Amino acid sequence: MLRGPEMGELTRRDVFKGTGALGAAAIVDGALGAPARARSRGKEADEADVVDVAVIGAGVSGAYAAWRLLGPEAEHSNALKKLRRSGRGPLRVHLFEGSERVGGRLFSVTPPGMPHLHAELGGMRYLDNQPVVADLVEHLGLPTDPFPVDEPQNLVYLRRHRFTQAQWNDPTVVPYDLPAAIRGKSPDDALVSVIERFVPGAAGMNQKAWDKIKPTASVDGRHLYDIGFWNLLLDAVGQEGWSFLRDGFGYGSVVANVNSIEAMEASVADFVGSPAPQYLLLRNGYQTVPEELVRRFEAEGGTVHLHHQVRRIDRETVHGEDVLALALSVWPTGRPLTVRARHVVLAMPQRSIELLDPDTFLFTSDRFLSDLGSIVPRPASKLFLGYDRPWWEDLGLRAGRSVTDLPLRQTYYWGVEGKQPGADPANRNALLLASYNDLSDVEFWNELLTRPHRLAPVAVTRPPRPMDASAPGALVDEAQRQLRELHGPDARVPDPTSAYFQDWVQDPYGAAFHFWQVGAKSWEIMPRMRHPLPDANLYVCGDAWSTGQGWVYGALTQAELMLEEHFGLPRPTWLSPSTYLGP
Amino acid sequence: MLRGPEMGELTRRDVFKGTGALGAAAIVDGALGAPARARSRGKEADEADVVDVAVIGAGVSGAYAAWRLLGPEAEHSNALKKLRRSGRGPLRVHLFEGSERVGGRLFSVTPPGMPHLHAELGGMRYLDNQPVVADLVEHLGLPTDPFPVDEPQNLVYLRRHRFTQAQWNDPTVVPYDLPAAIRGKSPDDALVSVIERFVPGAAGMNQKAWDKIKPTASVDGRHLYDIGFWNLLLDAVGQEGWSFLRDGFGYGSVVANVNSIEAMEASVADFVGSPAPQYLLLRNGYQTVPEELVRRFEAEGGTVHLHHQVRRIDRETVHGEDVLALALSVWPTGRPLTVRARHVVLAMPQRSIELLDPDTFLFTSDRFLSDLGSIVPRPASKLFLGYDRPWWEDLGLRAGRSVTDLPLRQTYYWGVEGKQPGADPANRNALLLASYNDLSDVEFWNELLTRPHRLAPVAVTRPPRPMDASAPGALVDEAQRQLRELHGPDARVPDPTSAYFQDWVQDPYGAAFHFWQVGAKSWEIMPRMRHPLPDANLYVCGDAWSTGQGWVYGALTQAELMLEEHFGLPRPTWLSPSTYLGP
Repeated sequence: MLRGPEMGELTRRDVFKGTGALGAAAIVDGALGAPARARSRGKEADEADVVDVAVIGAGVSGAYAAWRLLGPEAEHSNALKKLRRSGRGPLRVHLFEGSERVGGRLFSVTPPGMPHLHAELGGMRYLDNQPVVADLVEHLGLPTDPFPVDEPQNLVYLRRHRFTQAQWNDPTVVPYDLPAAIRGKSPDDALVSVIERFVPGAAGMNQKAWDKIKPTASVDGRHLYDIGFWNLLLDAVGQEGWSFLRDGFGYGSVVANVNSIEAMEASVADFVGSPAPQYLLLRNGYQTVPEELVRRFEAEGGTVHLHHQVRRIDRETVHGEDVLALALSVWPTGRPLTVRARHVVLAMPQRSIELLDPDTFLFTSDRFLSDLGSIVPRPASKLFLGYDRPWWEDLGLRAGRSVTDLPLRQTYYWGVEGKQPGADPANRNALLLASYNDLSDVEFWNELLTRPHRLAPVAVTRPPRPMDASAPGALVDEAQRQLRELHGPDARVPDPTSAYFQDWVQDPYGAAFHFWQVGAKSWEIMPRMRHPLPDANLYVCGDAWSTGQGWVYGALTQAELMLEEHFGLPRPTWLSPSTYLGP
Repeated sequence: MLRGPEMGELTRRDVFKGTGALGAAAIVDGALGAPARARSRGKEADEADVVDVAVIGAGVSGAYAAWRLLGPEAEHSNALKKLRRSGRGPLRVHLFEGSERVGGRLFSVTPPGMPHLHAELGGMRYLDNQPVVADLVEHLGLPTDPFPVDEPQNLVYLRRHRFTQAQWNDPTVVPYDLPAAIRGKSPDDALVSVIERFVPGAAGMNQKAWDKIKPTASVDGRHLYDIGFWNLLLDAVGQEGWSFLRDGFGYGSVVANVNSIEAMEASVADFVGSPAPQYLLLRNGYQTVPEELVRRFEAEGGTVHLHHQVRRIDRETVHGEDVLALALSVWPTGRPLTVRARHVVLAMPQRSIELLDPDTFLFTSDRFLSDLGSIVPRPASKLFLGYDRPWWEDLGLRAGRSVTDLPLRQTYYWGVEGKQPGADPANRNALLLASYNDLSDVEFWNELLTRPHRLAPVAVTRPPRPMDASAPGALVDEAQRQLRELHGPDARVPDPTSAYFQDWVQDPYGAAFHFWQVGAKSWEIMPRMRHPLPDANLYVCGDAWSTGQGWVYGALTQAELMLEEHFGLPRPTWLSPSTYLGP
């Protein structure tokens, strides 16, 4: 059972045992100490009461689901009407979040001296062709700005050769011994040309077209969903071709060994489709999307509980009604609390669900366990550095990214404070996404973190730490060294004025993004995950099991489909009824 | 609680809950069904009895510990004398193994038609300078053969350039843009030269000398144990130098981001030391070492229980005596069984210990959890292919390895049946270690396995599967394709006659080998792991927490030190008293 509040931390035994010894049936917003109460929200509830819907996780999909359940469309749902009648008065929706903040893997930090720039340590952008997200942002009235990626003057630094993005087409400059089929092509064009070999017309296909061919697309009698993308690419372009794609693309994840048909769709839709999609940033930080959703949710009478971490979920019967009992820990004390709910929405990624107590009833289903394991978690980390001037402009670099095989991998020239709308034009402070890296490169940077992070006990959940993105000196020094190497002898890289680092592989996130396993049939798994057990009022949503993995639109489409299918919510007015949301 | 035998498999809930509902205090060799009984060993024991020592895990360290506890030196141990007096008659040592076989990560398979060749799917060789192992092999009377590694005519195939090992010294041939300091050097020589920059004289240092400098060796005021080896190497030789070492060395693990001082010792001792160490194979398979140890253990009255998987360990008091209660599952039924022991030796690697029920008392110790996490698990896999002739001899290749950046990574020309001592000289059947690969390359091959393996539920332990090393067709086809590419247009690669694949990352092994984390002080952690809790008679041994990680000598030194320190065993007569076993 849980230790007393004076211990502050749980042992591994505690974590797995959860709150088994708790018998009380109470919804009580914790008797928190002052510092925590200041950051916590919510009102006290009656003992032995049952909430209508408990949403777990205040990332963007949880915030969206909670908001929609109390929004104007909820009036038209018969399922929710019935739920209101069985309760006492208005629908009671509670949003529980283990950490101290709303946003999950959307995490926007504003560095000192540049109030109009935001270091996006998690999700950072969306594409104008992604369903739901653009409409939602417009509906919420949040301002956006364009986000350039590949500018012709930007740098490529591979195998100690430095050239510009404009020179991708010059085989005498690109230091890879490429097969003829992709020689003289940029990594984007090379990848599209390979994909088109297997899926003719791929570059112009939309999500609906992809979903239509996924169950049947094949090569030599084998389904593409059953072939690893690395296996496929190696056969298609050889080791040098594959290394060129991995290094030049900037992301290793895209060409790793995941489900080929899903990887093809993701590559084309996200990066290299035709016409080229437009990237957009949220002007005040991507985190403002879930924050605004939660603000509106609370304005409609919803209740938010920060510092409330769900440990275990049990099935129970209360007064003849099937309910789900959530065993929670309330931080910082770890005080146990049990909340009962008629419906539960798990707006959580793979690792967060795995960290639930093994006694949680979901884990008795082999089908659920198999679906839980149908995606691969992938690490990625980001390092932002603030400077007192945009030193990269001396080199003619203004926006977008440079790419390298150094562990930095991708460097984005994020922006200059004085150039932002509403900012003081004389303010020359500037922000750099010094490194956006994934897969094994994450380990390079992790080892430059401070000790407690690295030697953390295996498989142990500690109380959620406050999100602290401060980057240690050794890590910053190494990044500065690599920035100088990437930018060449003419670069004058001053000392940074601020530094932020985030590695999303840490618990409870477990991954920056997820990819479909080879062999996984996404079109069958996604609907099952939205309602995993036919006889339990529990639903899963988020980007992890979506065809927009790693993107906010993946999270929103799964949340929207879940709400429409299982809560009877009609399509919201701000979203076109013809918008295709997938299977 | 555990499901009944009719279910055959455990759910995740069962696994983590273990055998909590069991009250019986019995040592009973399971009432196994006929097929399992045929493979199981051991005699029935009295109910409510307590064994003196339970050794968990019949890998080489467990087999060694069990044998030594009943060997001739045991007569001279006061601790064991006392234990015998408190018991009834001779010392009762039981060896419990979850799988159906003795050997653990030593797994030797004899392909059809080549009775004198053995596919070593796990550990395959030792070095004549490694303590304990050579003496033990000699003492056991097991025959050995030399094992060549790098022959000058062997191939290197990197970045689509094919050359021979003799050409490493020609910078016009090696397709890496190397810094002057390592240009013209082989990867081995390059690595030694870099290590010597930080540890002068490293190439000639023995284990004792390394142990002496580990706590203090530093660069720029930072301890080498506190620096990642990748971080260090990148600074020393740049991205191209590091890529050259990673690709050319054949193992990615060696230059990944682990503890620098430990990685340096491992590189020098295992691969590149001066004078060059001699590699040796066990003529009848490496597995014969643990098998012979277990045979002798049984001859001395020891009891072996295969198919007995330990699920949880509790502290109990029986008739006023502190004992440890082992909750086991007896396969194939999963029947629960509780065994009590005065002393318990966990001869298990990291992942096997993590898979114990979270209620196991060890996990209440933060120190133990931290030590458990002080090593990094690394995946590696091996593919052996048998042929009806040694086709590589047509190309002048006779022994040792070729190296490539293709996912094959390392190919060893294992041997020709007719050339083995005692074999029919006319038998031309031949064995190839087609691929020995590690880190991310393992994923390339895994995705070519059959479905059930890949989409296995996350974090679930199933009943141990019989070791099945048969390789599927898709994997073999891809390996054949890469073998043809590696060996060039003159190679005539016939269809293989047999194929064996083993990926050691699967549970309960969790890794092929382990490396020390950056920041870990091995000299403090190893003695603690041998006796993790001062007030509990429980001991851990094996190669995972040793300075011979990934080698049998690491397993044996830790087992020997544990026996000497905590069971009062004197050094055995066949081992020189002056042999240095480390801290």
